[in-house]
Parts: sequence; C-alpha cells; structure tokens
Amino acid sequence: MAYIRVPEELPGIRGLMAFRPETARPMNDFVETLLHAPHSLTPGERELIATYVSYLNDCYYCQTCHGYIAAACLDGDEDLVRRVKADFQHADISDKLKALLVIAGKVQKSGKSVTTEDVERARSLGATDLEIHDTVLIAAAFCMFNRYVDGLRTWQPHDEAMYRERGKRIARDGYVFISQEYLPAEAGAK
Amino acid sequence: MAYIRVPEELPGIRGLMAFRPETARPMNDFVETLLHAPHSLTPGERELIATYVSYLNDCYYCQTCHGYIAAACLDGDEDLVRRVKADFQHADISDKLKALLVIAGKVQKSGKSVTTEDVERARSLGATDLEIHDTVLIAAAFCMFNRYVDGLRTWQPHDEAMYRERGKRIARDGYVFISQEYLPAEAGAK
Repeated sequence: MAYIRVPEELPGIRGLMAFRPETARPMNDFVETLLHAPHSLTPGERELIATYVSYLNDCYYCQTCHGYIAAACLDGDEDLVRRVKADFQHADISDKLKALLVIAGKVQKSGKSVTTEDVERARSLGATDLEIHDTVLIAAAFCMFNRYVDGLRTWQPHDEAMYRERGKRIARDGYVFISQEYLPAEAGAK
Repeated sequence: MAYIRVPEELPGIRGLMAFRPETARPMNDFVETLLHAPHSLTPGERELIATYVSYLNDCYYCQTCHGYIAAACLDGDEDLVRRVKADFQHADISDKLKALLVIAGKVQKSGKSVTTEDVERARSLGATDLEIHDTVLIAAAFCMFNRYVDGLRTWQPHDEAMYRERGKRIARDGYVFISQEYLPAEAGAK
C-alpha cells in the first residue's frame, strides 16, 4: 500500500498523478516533449536513456514501463533493452548513443560527475548541443520520477504483459493522450 | 563556460531554459504549482525543502537561488535559511516541517530510503497526504533541477546581492511570470 491514499487500481506514477492532477499535467507535458515529440534522437533512443537511468536507480516500475515503451519504439526488440541495461557498451546501438548513455549514467550519480571529456566524446561522435542537453535533462528527470514513484511506495505490480501492452500504447499515442484515462477531464482541455 | 552554447548573460537554469523553451514552459508551470501556488504549506516552508535538498546535492546555484526566495517568503530571515541547511533539527521551525525535511533528505538519497516510520512521524505531527506527497515531489524535483544545472556546467556567479534581489521578485511574482524575461513571447500566451 502506498504511503498516501491513491486510487487503488492505478499502479506507479498513475496513482500519484490521479491524486495530484495539478502537478501531473505539467509533468505529462514535459515528458511528452522530452521523450515523444519529434527529435533528432528517436523516441526509442530517448526511452533507452530513461530506462537505463531508472535501472541504475533500481526503480522497478519506471524501468519496466519505459523499457517496454523503448521496445515498442524499437520494433519490439525487448532483448536490446535488456542488453542496454546490462552492458550498453556491447549492445547493438550507435557509438553516439553509447556516449550519451555514459553522460546519463554520470548524471544519475550527480550533475557534477559529468566531465568535459564525456561531453567532447559525445560531440566527436556527432551529438548536437540539443542532444547533449536533452540527455542530461532526461537523466535528471528520471532521477525525479524514480524518487517520486519509490519515495511514496507506490503499488508496482509484476505483470509484464500489462507493461508490454501499455508500452505499445504510449509509444503510439504519447503521454498526454494516455494520461486522460486517469486525470480529470479538464486535463485534456488545457 | 557551460557544456552547450547558452545565452552568456543568463546564469544557472535560466540559460538552459532560454536554450530549450519547449521543456522550460512545463517545468515553470510545474514549479509554480509546487512552490508558489496557494497551499497548506507556506511558500517559505516549501522553498526551505527545495533549498535543503539543493544543499544536500551541493548545487550552489539552486541552494542560493531558492535560499533567498525562502528568506524573502520568511520576512527576510536569511539566518533561518542558513540554520535549516546546517542543522534543521535545532532550527526555529515547526516539528511537522522537521519531519518533512527528514523525508526530503531520504528522498535525496533514494526514494527507497523513505520508511513507514518517517511517514507516520510526519502524519502524527499533523502532515496531510497532500503535504507528504508534495514534500516527496519537491525533493525529487530538486534532484532533477540540481542535476540539470550542474550536469551541463552552467555559469553560477557568486553574487549574493543578485540572488537576494531575484529571490524577492520570485517570492512576489512567481516562476511563470518571471520566466517571461528569458523565454520567447509565446511562453506567456500559453
């Protein structure tokens, strides 16, 4: 049972967002822009960064939820998601994404851990300022989301089929659309 | 110099927000609700939580910026802000706020660090579900903002007078209003 009274049928961040729609709405707008909107990094690449940071923070709900969104964005390649979490340097992803994951892993520890060399390496492999910025912000954002979900001890069912189905829907429709399921109607009217 | 090309005259998160207004707008809406909007915790109490977490994360820009906003909300009591950072258990704040700061300090380490006892203690001192929720979310959010500001190595001038003046203005006008200074005009039209 979560530390506060949230709707019982809603796992993870969904229960918290239903409890506090005033903060949920800007959070959904934020993550829609960061992970789902058109970008030079694909949604799959951005979801892999989110998944990897959530894995480092040991947040079951977020790493599973975003892992399945990433897989859905990557033609269903769930094995690639597992390999990125376990050892991304040997996974079948671009060198640029590997360099960005190094930065994301540093941010998970502390912002101050990121070095000039980390940034220069990503840049030498083609990363733009926007890609470096968004990698740092995605990693930082999941240091928030992971703490939010675990800090209030939300219900996190171990039902992989549920996460897989939901992952497909979020990959297709995005975060703001799907949040209308559990946010009051005015959320869609913004 | 920051790791990416941001407007040179804008310190800390302001330069990053000017670089990426698409993510800045929902972040400002979010922090306006969380720290400035009417609430059973005063803006001063919420800013103290933000300042304390930023201090634990050793983020000079955020702890100074929010420390002066907190002081402005607390009739200019800069000494109270210093005492909360150094040893809040002996500062002149309510027992309820002390219990919430314990929770915030746990969230700074990891969401999983928060215990049933921490939450029950806050509740026994009068904390509501909303106050517990928002304490966890403020602490989690500053684990994001601190990493964002330090992870991109933003310019963080050591000019206390500048932070003091800005703190007064944010305490009075809020985050969304003041962000119009450095976000493109459409930010205000949302």
